[in-house]
Amino acid sequence: MGERPQQEQASPEARKRIRESFDRQGLMAHLGARITHVGPGRVHIELPARPEVTQQHGYVHAGATSAIADSAGGYAALTLFPEESDVLTVEYKINLLAPAAGDHLEAIGIVLKPGRTLTVCQLEVYGVRGDGERKLVANGQQTLIRVDRPAK
Amino acid sequence: MGERPQQEQASPEARKRIRESFDRQGLMAHLGARITHVGPGRVHIELPARPEVTQQHGYVHAGATSAIADSAGGYAALTLFPEESDVLTVEYKINLLAPAAGDHLEAIGIVLKPGRTLTVCQLEVYGVRGDGERKLVANGQQTLIRVDRPAK
Amino acid sequence: MGERPQQEQASPEARKRIRESFDRQGLMAHLGARITHVGPGRVHIELPARPEVTQQHGYVHAGATSAIADSAGGYAALTLFPEESDVLTVEYKINLLAPAAGDHLEAIGIVLKPGRTLTVCQLEVYGVRGDGERKLVANGQQTLIRVDRPAK
Amino acid sequence: MGERPQQEQASPEARKRIRESFDRQGLMAHLGARITHVGPGRVHIELPARPEVTQQHGYVHAGATSAIADSAGGYAALTLFPEESDVLTVEYKINLLAPAAGDHLEAIGIVLKPGRTLTVCQLEVYGVRGDGERKLVANGQQTLIRVDRPAK
Repeated sequence: MGERPQQEQASPEARKRIRESFDRQGLMAHLGARITHVGPGRVHIELPARPEVTQQHGYVHAGATSAIADSAGGYAALTLFPEESDVLTVEYKINLLAPAAGDHLEAIGIVLKPGRTLTVCQLEVYGVRGDGERKLVANGQQTLIRVDRPAK
Repeated sequence: MGERPQQEQASPEARKRIRESFDRQGLMAHLGARITHVGPGRVHIELPARPEVTQQHGYVHAGATSAIADSAGGYAALTLFPEESDVLTVEYKINLLAPAAGDHLEAIGIVLKPGRTLTVCQLEVYGVRGDGERKLVANGQQTLIRVDRPAK
Repeated sequence: MGERPQQEQASPEARKRIRESFDRQGLMAHLGARITHVGPGRVHIELPARPEVTQQHGYVHAGATSAIADSAGGYAALTLFPEESDVLTVEYKINLLAPAAGDHLEAIGIVLKPGRTLTVCQLEVYGVRGDGERKLVANGQQTLIRVDRPAK
Repeated sequence: MGERPQQEQASPEARKRIRESFDRQGLMAHLGARITHVGPGRVHIELPARPEVTQQHGYVHAGATSAIADSAGGYAALTLFPEESDVLTVEYKINLLAPAAGDHLEAIGIVLKPGRTLTVCQLEVYGVRGDGERKLVANGQQTLIRVDRPAK
């Protein structure tokens, strides 16, 4: 019923796998981040703006902004991998374009180039106000490597 | 008395200014990070490895690793600026070289090229074990911009 | 008459200014690059694939790929600046996504975030075959600083 | 006999292999670059400042600066690989710290973290005047992937 287009969902198996991995990331829970969309090659993570995630001027700290961007990109890559795989960040680069202000941040990780070994993602972070207005506050690029998940 | 060389300290004024700014960063306190050295053009930040800062495998999350690296670089730049200045991260790039394991992480920000408007820092993060053994776990490069501090 | 949409042109003044600057870049002429589109906040540069620009496997060298990407981004920023301004690259990061093969490369620089001092551009480089098929071979992100043009 | 310390050389086999690969890079010859040192995990490349490699102000173009930095890093990694291996640049990030002026540029690629699949290098480029004075003009970080050399 809303005006926003319905976004494609990843398979139930992939969504379950990614949510379980996300729940094991102590940092995401500690920051208050939650995963809000798991599509094929695309993951969204939201972070409420709270005093616990700020820098010295009261905006969200670049480190918190980067943390949700990094996780969004990693999980976007993971949606495209077989079940027994895992993913590690090789490196990323991020530009902080504007003060990370708003009611919450939304990080979007999008697979730009999937690969058997390496995957490259684009990272975007928006500051979202209570009235829904969105502003791009950070933009980045990330390289990930697929690894075999260690047997339990 | 130790074997480690005594490192040069920044001026008392700069150290005070930087510690006050650090104390205003909600994220650093929330992560449990503390500033351990403020030298001219060089700042160290330590982060104890706790469940609150982990990724899905129990290592320190790239986002937490980056957060302390970013803050260390920013404050390293700030040591070289006049009192009424502040600093913002323009961008950074970081390679995660090895799993961020250890008793704690130590991020070191070093000014590579100071400038009137832009400053470039090198970022290093070490995983430090309880027995003192250190391993480079991340390496990065950061661009910062000097801004005039808004009047209070 | 073609299927490709007509792209918006920058002002005649901006186009003239940018072509004159491009003509002063010895490297672009030496590589055989030419500027093929100057739109507001968007510039295209083409580089024919010749033995003079290759790496050891016969593909276009990452350095040549980067050179046209860097110039495309710089001129994209310059289209948005007043006449007496010039632009310098602060830094860029580029991922080489696939072997840079094809009849020629096309680099596209797009302003992502304009600013009074700093501008951030997205960089894309496509390998284009003789039959027109295009493939993304590199993707990057660039930070530029506006400077006053020295009086002649 | 000079004051500059003698730098360690790579094995004759590695030096031969790298010089042969360098000679197949059409771009390096076209730019006028030459390889001046091949040590274990460390390679130097020099580029004379000529009109053919300039940007619009007469300094060496960021693209040429990057090209020799990228090649220096790639060959530094290659010195550590077995004979049947080759190397591809995954990505790099470079800061242009100062106008690339001087009689010639010297790019230095240094392996920071070798690996079975991925290797990370530090890149430095110096502007060198006729009287030998050196100035750091660019600094970067590069990720490389080892590939099996295709059978001839």
